[in-house]
Amino acid sequence: MTAPALAVIAGAGDLPRRVALSAREQGRRVLVVLLRGAGDPAAFPDFETVTIGVGQVGRLVRTLKAHDISDLCFIGAVIRPDLASLRPDLGLIRRLPGLVAAFRGGDDKLLRYVTELARGEGFRVVSAAEIAPDLMAGTGIVSLRQPGPSERDDARTGLRLIDDLAAHDVGQAVVVAGGRVLAIEAAEGTNAMIDRIRDMRASGRLRLADRTGLLVKAAKRGQDMRMDLPTIGPETVRRVAAAGLSGLCLRAGEVIIAERDETIRLADAHGLVLIVEPRSATS
Amino acid sequence: MTAPALAVIAGAGDLPRRVALSAREQGRRVLVVLLRGAGDPAAFPDFETVTIGVGQVGRLVRTLKAHDISDLCFIGAVIRPDLASLRPDLGLIRRLPGLVAAFRGGDDKLLRYVTELARGEGFRVVSAAEIAPDLMAGTGIVSLRQPGPSERDDARTGLRLIDDLAAHDVGQAVVVAGGRVLAIEAAEGTNAMIDRIRDMRASGRLRLADRTGLLVKAAKRGQDMRMDLPTIGPETVRRVAAAGLSGLCLRAGEVIIAERDETIRLADAHGLVLIVEPRSATS
Repeated sequence: MTAPALAVIAGAGDLPRRVALSAREQGRRVLVVLLRGAGDPAAFPDFETVTIGVGQVGRLVRTLKAHDISDLCFIGAVIRPDLASLRPDLGLIRRLPGLVAAFRGGDDKLLRYVTELARGEGFRVVSAAEIAPDLMAGTGIVSLRQPGPSERDDARTGLRLIDDLAAHDVGQAVVVAGGRVLAIEAAEGTNAMIDRIRDMRASGRLRLADRTGLLVKAAKRGQDMRMDLPTIGPETVRRVAAAGLSGLCLRAGEVIIAERDETIRLADAHGLVLIVEPRSATS
Repeated sequence: MTAPALAVIAGAGDLPRRVALSAREQGRRVLVVLLRGAGDPAAFPDFETVTIGVGQVGRLVRTLKAHDISDLCFIGAVIRPDLASLRPDLGLIRRLPGLVAAFRGGDDKLLRYVTELARGEGFRVVSAAEIAPDLMAGTGIVSLRQPGPSERDDARTGLRLIDDLAAHDVGQAVVVAGGRVLAIEAAEGTNAMIDRIRDMRASGRLRLADRTGLLVKAAKRGQDMRMDLPTIGPETVRRVAAAGLSGLCLRAGEVIIAERDETIRLADAHGLVLIVEPRSATS
């Protein structure tokens, strides 16, 4: 039995290629669908690729069927498109009523809609983490610097808070410093939340010793990991350093490290800790 | 038995005068201590007043003792001072080691320190809500517009979230829209959190119908109500309107409405709902 053929629906960043390579290693036939304006054709010289606009749902479905694809994996960054700029094809317009409703809801609602849409067309949506488990941060201290007791406490405090927030479908990330919760992420996203710490320090609203505070990030419990994988990368580390925090804590198996080598190199260059807590410690 | 003499330590806004009047009605002798740069001398023509800088702790203690004051009530807005701009007197310098430590902590820690300091000098710190219970929003729909079912749901969702956050000593306010949590307040304060919604709408990060979303505000459970009373006022309402939200929900007995008439007038002028949920509904 060969593994079923897979289409990697590729946004930006290095993750789509890592998923495509893992899938090939598992003996899958792989088609890379580059989302126009996001996926990078130059990253896939050794793969069969096709470029499709986000609004070209009809064309996407026909292409997948022509290539005899059964499994889909969505991976990589995509700026949430304007409905106006979608330039929808007929395939999309037929499916539009549900999509318009989904656009009004949160990210989860939109992603669930896309998953359901794919399923309705007979595809199976698989998680990038399932295809390439090594994308996920493994347990341990990834940085050169080891965390102190206060950083370990803040890590646990943050993970417990994220778990308590899960019932409310909110909070993929928080910032904790010396036991005090400084910021909780909701609709603004992780980057904006980190930048808020930087701004509060600059304005004097927040008075903290330099290099205090931990960014703590994990999946919301019940999060659909097929579509929306919590991710950090070099940009996250740069912002954490600019905000004067002392490091990051991720929960193992729940957060992807994009451009892993560069991310770890940057954390070390800034003297940050990068902790990956085992799941059992807090959940 | 006459009620004990009270010093109202007065910051900015209309609340100090309302507390002073209530205390006088209760038969208390009242001294108004205007905090320099915050308390307004013109608001107290009919009270005995003294003006004291925030750093003049020695002078404050001597003044209170000279006036035979036993009870203190801190009320009104004070910008958290820079340690550098305090111009401390000897009385403050003697107490400085603890204060410096308190400044490093959160607002709660600082306020608890001031309360302990007052207690150590033999004073009793009483809550403004205890002196003037009518400062607190009473239960009901305060606005002309009645809330719809979705607004009532968002109110309950927000209050439940605030209660779940209490264990983490965070979250006096949240914004909820159609069941989705858009923002959670931590160190940034309520105003900055509301403005974030406005900014996310302007940038297109948040796509919501106009006039959706409720600001929900309550005391953290376990909050020291003697020093840090959650407050809304005209400025809150203006920001809620500017952020395109549909209204506010407070929990009865936990949130002060400053400049009540103007606050309600503004809410009505913007067509906002102002809901005061009874405590029993959610806690």
